[in-house]
Amino acid sequence: MPQDIYDKIMMLAKRRGFVFPSFEIYGGVAGFYDYGPLGSQLKLNIENLWRKIFLLKDNCIEICTPTITLHEVLKASGHVDEFTDLTVDCKKCKQSYKVEDIVDNISAEEAVKKGKIKCPNCGANLKDAYPVNLMFSTRIGIGSARDAFLRPETAQGIFTDFHLLYRYAREKLPFGVIQVGRGYRNEVSPRQGTIRLREFSMAEAEIFFDPKDKTHPNFKSVKDKELYLFDNKKKMKLSVEKAVKNKVINNQALAYYMYLTQEFLMTAGVDPKKFRFRKHGDDELAHYATECWDAELFSERFGWTECVGIADRSAYDLQSHIDSSGTDMYALRKYDEPKEVKVKKIVVDMGKLGPLFKDKAGEIKSILENMGPTINKKSDIELTFLRQKITIPKNCYEIVESTEKEFGEKFVPHVIEPSFGIDRILYCLLEHNYHEGKKKGEEYRILKFNPLIAPIKVGILPLISDEKLLKIAYMIDENLRNAGIKTYYDDGGSIGRRYARMDEVGTPFCITVDHDTIKDNTVTIRDRDTTKQVRKNIDELKSCFEKLI
Amino acid sequence: MPQDIYDKIMMLAKRRGFVFPSFEIYGGVAGFYDYGPLGSQLKLNIENLWRKIFLLKDNCIEICTPTITLHEVLKASGHVDEFTDLTVDCKKCKQSYKVEDIVDNISAEEAVKKGKIKCPNCGANLKDAYPVNLMFSTRIGIGSARDAFLRPETAQGIFTDFHLLYRYAREKLPFGVIQVGRGYRNEVSPRQGTIRLREFSMAEAEIFFDPKDKTHPNFKSVKDKELYLFDNKKKMKLSVEKAVKNKVINNQALAYYMYLTQEFLMTAGVDPKKFRFRKHGDDELAHYATECWDAELFSERFGWTECVGIADRSAYDLQSHIDSSGTDMYALRKYDEPKEVKVKKIVVDMGKLGPLFKDKAGEIKSILENMGPTINKKSDIELTFLRQKITIPKNCYEIVESTEKEFGEKFVPHVIEPSFGIDRILYCLLEHNYHEGKKKGEEYRILKFNPLIAPIKVGILPLISDEKLLKIAYMIDENLRNAGIKTYYDDGGSIGRRYARMDEVGTPFCITVDHDTIKDNTVTIRDRDTTKQVRKNIDELKSCFEKLI
Repeated sequence: MPQDIYDKIMMLAKRRGFVFPSFEIYGGVAGFYDYGPLGSQLKLNIENLWRKIFLLKDNCIEICTPTITLHEVLKASGHVDEFTDLTVDCKKCKQSYKVEDIVDNISAEEAVKKGKIKCPNCGANLKDAYPVNLMFSTRIGIGSARDAFLRPETAQGIFTDFHLLYRYAREKLPFGVIQVGRGYRNEVSPRQGTIRLREFSMAEAEIFFDPKDKTHPNFKSVKDKELYLFDNKKKMKLSVEKAVKNKVINNQALAYYMYLTQEFLMTAGVDPKKFRFRKHGDDELAHYATECWDAELFSERFGWTECVGIADRSAYDLQSHIDSSGTDMYALRKYDEPKEVKVKKIVVDMGKLGPLFKDKAGEIKSILENMGPTINKKSDIELTFLRQKITIPKNCYEIVESTEKEFGEKFVPHVIEPSFGIDRILYCLLEHNYHEGKKKGEEYRILKFNPLIAPIKVGILPLISDEKLLKIAYMIDENLRNAGIKTYYDDGGSIGRRYARMDEVGTPFCITVDHDTIKDNTVTIRDRDTTKQVRKNIDELKSCFEKLI
Repeated sequence: MPQDIYDKIMMLAKRRGFVFPSFEIYGGVAGFYDYGPLGSQLKLNIENLWRKIFLLKDNCIEICTPTITLHEVLKASGHVDEFTDLTVDCKKCKQSYKVEDIVDNISAEEAVKKGKIKCPNCGANLKDAYPVNLMFSTRIGIGSARDAFLRPETAQGIFTDFHLLYRYAREKLPFGVIQVGRGYRNEVSPRQGTIRLREFSMAEAEIFFDPKDKTHPNFKSVKDKELYLFDNKKKMKLSVEKAVKNKVINNQALAYYMYLTQEFLMTAGVDPKKFRFRKHGDDELAHYATECWDAELFSERFGWTECVGIADRSAYDLQSHIDSSGTDMYALRKYDEPKEVKVKKIVVDMGKLGPLFKDKAGEIKSILENMGPTINKKSDIELTFLRQKITIPKNCYEIVESTEKEFGEKFVPHVIEPSFGIDRILYCLLEHNYHEGKKKGEEYRILKFNPLIAPIKVGILPLISDEKLLKIAYMIDENLRNAGIKTYYDDGGSIGRRYARMDEVGTPFCITVDHDTIKDNTVTIRDRDTTKQVRKNIDELKSCFEKLI
């Protein structure tokens, strides 16, 4: 069978230590991959480049929250009810399928309605599709254990801390919060290699805006840059500013983060011809989004592949957590002068509420107090609390009106979210940077990684196995590593083979130590892409590579 | 109630954005914490320093494997059977306890035997202690789902890839493999704040040795350094070399990694007076270890606290995975000349094995072939395969003797494992670097972090709110961030308050922009610990801080 580029890359990836199938010695499981020594460095470099742009350049703050997430959080966010795939089981051969994977051209819902799906395995007719939740579930503790899931996105950890982060940001909008880490999705039957993982690495940014002002302070600096857009009909290149003006993109904030995303991907080494932003149709928007653009990268095996989603999540998540938890997660639009306003408040009678709800009474009290402005008439109140419907009898509270000073208008911030799938970007970078040909009749492969993301920066190769040369080479290796530069020392085989080994894993530079080195303290630096060589003094190497990388 | 240092630090940590209790808006759960903007940077800096020592200086390779781990892996490693805590439930008040937590002075086993444990909550007599497995469990897929756990350690991901990593290391020992990431432990009832987490960050190194040669190539460079040791009776300072010579530490490899650990902790900013290595008694060794030293840090609240464990895991894990999976995970000790040897081999008759075991026959075949040398007489073979006992009838195979060339002796490498609990180290660094006093009658707190790990490196403070100064300050801020230096821009409040805010979160340097800046392009740099100020030209700032940090 002829190999496509995916096969070639996965073979190289396994042979040279980029990617291994997980648990292979126990038969493996679809949807899990290990990053080997080179893959792990490549991933780290991609994440560090991402942080450089979002944490340092864009000045976001970063947080780090658990992957295990309480049921309550994901119930409020809508994931318990909405994060599902329509699934069918084959009664004959016992396979399960995601409907979307086995029907073509028509929507999954339609296919199910028509009842004309056949089992790709045994050909039997498939019926009774049902939604399957895609979260991995687990339980915390024993006995009175609490239900939990592995997070489907890092974002919820940011939303549930919003009130603390808003204080950290000194109550000024906009501000951005990032998180880099694992996400999980218990796919029914993943069959796309490293593209559809059950456990993956993501980098997400949640930028909080006043919904009345979705401008961005740095917009000016990017307004003339061109975006590569695709509106599901035609491709177009538009300046950031024009895209907003012509309403192709809804607001400055969204357009600004789209440009930042494009800049990140281009710097990482994506082929511009294999890059586009595609706008979501109304029927494909996630349950929390009002507008969404995908940064898609083209893969020869997988076609246009979503690698980043940039969504306007509006007030959806914060509002949900306010409603479910009763926590004050509002932002304040300050008035120039404080206003006097009449407010309705619920004053809880703990003498009555306490005996009814015992240790839960305190939490219920604060939920009730938060409901203050929405209650007009005194009557029994129905609430959902810890997933149970409860009724608060009307004798448990009073509605009190009073006059208070108001310093500003409370509102729920909107969120713009660029969400990056690191593993998919990593795979596409392998594909976009892979070059092959023949050299002296042999297969020759080069990964033309940007030095910034190359897993090994410098190969160190003593020309021949002479003790004196080895000693110098080893010293150079040690010095560069101590200066924070990832090297690879190799004294085995012909120099041509060693260059080839370094080219194949994308090492941008090689140092050769030869007999002249002993005489004049210089070495050869070879450039991977041009194969040109220059001589440099050993003492200049550190500063030379710091500049090059 | 008077506050101890833990209370003070946790208050500061929450107020200033180091650590927040997770899911607090839904009532929280013990054993989970979020790192806020400063905590997350601090953690990242600790991990980067660790990588600098293990990945770059010690030249280990890094890999990155899933947190979800197949049942088969953790069954083989012993965690399914051995990773347990002895637990009792109170029949009266329904609380569960880890026995160790509620008995003093005597061992948990003894307490249970005597049957004299009382419920700390309601006083009832507790009986019938039973072991509870400490892993979080989940399932992969639906229908024919597979059992899995969240990994209790990152190490197993390394062991199960050993054969691939050994090839990557070009079949030379010793070599080290590291992994940094989450680990999980479903504690029965964690009650020690950030010290006993259910989800934590770990950094582990597995260094593979030939068991006949536990020397280390870099041993010479550290042999005269002093180690802080405690053998459960007395403290002692011994040179690395002496500790090995006197058999206080079993071998060079173990001693070398103990020193590397000590160097890492000291550089990170641990107080040397609150540091020691304590040797495990035979009764406290983990199921996989033959010798173990804990690096313990002293905490005023928690006493001597295990933050790093440096264990000799011998051949335990690799041997277990060879036995369970049938994979060849041996290393080769090469002969100078190949030898002719007689070997016994099992030759499987697939015509008979195939129909019996269908799609599993291939895997069973390779397990049988691996057993070759251990089978002497032809008879039915009993195996455990995929957790079921199976019998291979003797007519399914032949024992064949032949003469082969052997290029070396196969053996199972031994493993030295330094395993770091990042969260505990982070907490102890907060405690060891916390200083308090009064300044002008007000409480004054300083975190004297080493600049290497400080979450913010430079505070940028325009002296007054003059548009000209703000503009320069903002430009300096932007330039430093783009140079990779984490800054904090602050133009609110008196300069004294702003210095105090930076001192409290451990920022080592502050830049003040004042009216002289406009005249001569210089700014003031203030040192946190000495409060001394020097003037520097703006153009020198970048290189100046690159040197200082």
